[in-house]
Amino acid sequence: MTTHQLTEQIKKKKSFLCIGLDVDLNKIPQHLLQEEDPIFAFNKAIIDATHHLCVAYKPNTAFYEAYGLKGWKALEKTIMYLNVKHPEIFTIADAKRGDIGNTSTMYAKAFFEDLAFDSVTVAPYMGKDSVEPFLAFENKHTILLALTSNAGAFDFQTKKIDEVELYKHVLETSKTWNNSQNLMYVVGATKAEYLAEIRKIIPESFLLVPGVGAQGGSLQEVCNYGMTNNVGLLINSSRGIIYASNGEDFAQASAAKAKELQEQMESILN
Amino acid sequence: MTTHQLTEQIKKKKSFLCIGLDVDLNKIPQHLLQEEDPIFAFNKAIIDATHHLCVAYKPNTAFYEAYGLKGWKALEKTIMYLNVKHPEIFTIADAKRGDIGNTSTMYAKAFFEDLAFDSVTVAPYMGKDSVEPFLAFENKHTILLALTSNAGAFDFQTKKIDEVELYKHVLETSKTWNNSQNLMYVVGATKAEYLAEIRKIIPESFLLVPGVGAQGGSLQEVCNYGMTNNVGLLINSSRGIIYASNGEDFAQASAAKAKELQEQMESILN
Repeated sequence: MTTHQLTEQIKKKKSFLCIGLDVDLNKIPQHLLQEEDPIFAFNKAIIDATHHLCVAYKPNTAFYEAYGLKGWKALEKTIMYLNVKHPEIFTIADAKRGDIGNTSTMYAKAFFEDLAFDSVTVAPYMGKDSVEPFLAFENKHTILLALTSNAGAFDFQTKKIDEVELYKHVLETSKTWNNSQNLMYVVGATKAEYLAEIRKIIPESFLLVPGVGAQGGSLQEVCNYGMTNNVGLLINSSRGIIYASNGEDFAQASAAKAKELQEQMESILN
Repeated sequence: MTTHQLTEQIKKKKSFLCIGLDVDLNKIPQHLLQEEDPIFAFNKAIIDATHHLCVAYKPNTAFYEAYGLKGWKALEKTIMYLNVKHPEIFTIADAKRGDIGNTSTMYAKAFFEDLAFDSVTVAPYMGKDSVEPFLAFENKHTILLALTSNAGAFDFQTKKIDEVELYKHVLETSKTWNNSQNLMYVVGATKAEYLAEIRKIIPESFLLVPGVGAQGGSLQEVCNYGMTNNVGLLINSSRGIIYASNGEDFAQASAAKAKELQEQMESILN
């Protein structure tokens, strides 16, 4: 999917919502545990109830790997379901991978070819040759960790190198890499005040913004500082939406929560 | 496994060799492709031929994820085979994970509980709360990326914050984290001259050292600068050993290459 197609979807749906599919078997409605594949059953119900309200889904791979083979199978079924039923939706493998060149190529194949995700999140610590193998895939997107939403972001990301914070070096340096047009960036909503500075470095790139909701970030603030003419934002909410209820009504409850966010986005877009 | 047990194994086998199980179906002997599970068949043959020459095996998860469900199943079978047949061997999931707290906990469960690895490699970019969930597991080891073996290491890791390189900040800061006694570190053999400096910060910790062989690092140099009284080194070789031959004799050829390295290690230890 191209970023142009993504922007078109945002305008059509009046939403730049991404829903995080972080399935924890201890948190999903317990009646689903009788299903043959409870993780996929949960995801399918959430997707059926919310797909018209969002433009992206983001399964975090940790939640699937934690269940071993069954988890990986549920991830495969989920992305296949999305690609067949809702090919207009942008899919993000939240995997935070990154390794030496030939190994990153294997990860890129896993997520872009085998699973056919539109994008994957990647960690920048190992530098250029750990990220470029992902960037080499046409019409696929590499979402680089820049400034994350957690407290640990202040351990290294905001430390200054020659008066400039590490995450800004990551942004600046990444612009020089081959196929940098395929980059997007993770910037946490809990650090919305940094967005004005970030937009000076990457005025147009799409940002994936976690941390609205459960982690306390403000949608309005993120938009004030981070929105571009082409919107340029994907706001993620995971737990706040998918665990809105753990009763029989969980899918409708998640749709109601997604609708709330979509309506706030619609009023911001207008 | 405790680090004491690991050191005992090193002394017994006169080896601190780790063999990287990075299985690429394009590179393994083609007669194995007729097997029901070629990846596991390859790993089993390599393990059977080399287990007396090494103290650790390190499958890199990228090479398994690239083959989807089949790959994940082969990874499960490989770690189970190691844990049942060779419980004295230290196992490393080279996964380079790292995410916000509750998500890192899911990764830790995946690798320490579900797959029962002794250790996992973790990226430091997201800081303390992304690493501590791994450190919470008793007698499990978190191998933090410090200074990696690739060219991209110079993009950020060696950049100076207050006159001190980022990778040194990572080392210093990580020592303050809860259960930091469970930390080991990745330091590339291609940067052996940095080891003297690194040993000033972490005099005792085990280092996992990739980059000897295919990437050009020198075993002797790494030992000169990095070895401790308890050895404190695991030297990894992947391609140099496992792809020593792609004929019917591949397992014997890998054992011969492993034996070469083991003998060099024995002479260094003496």
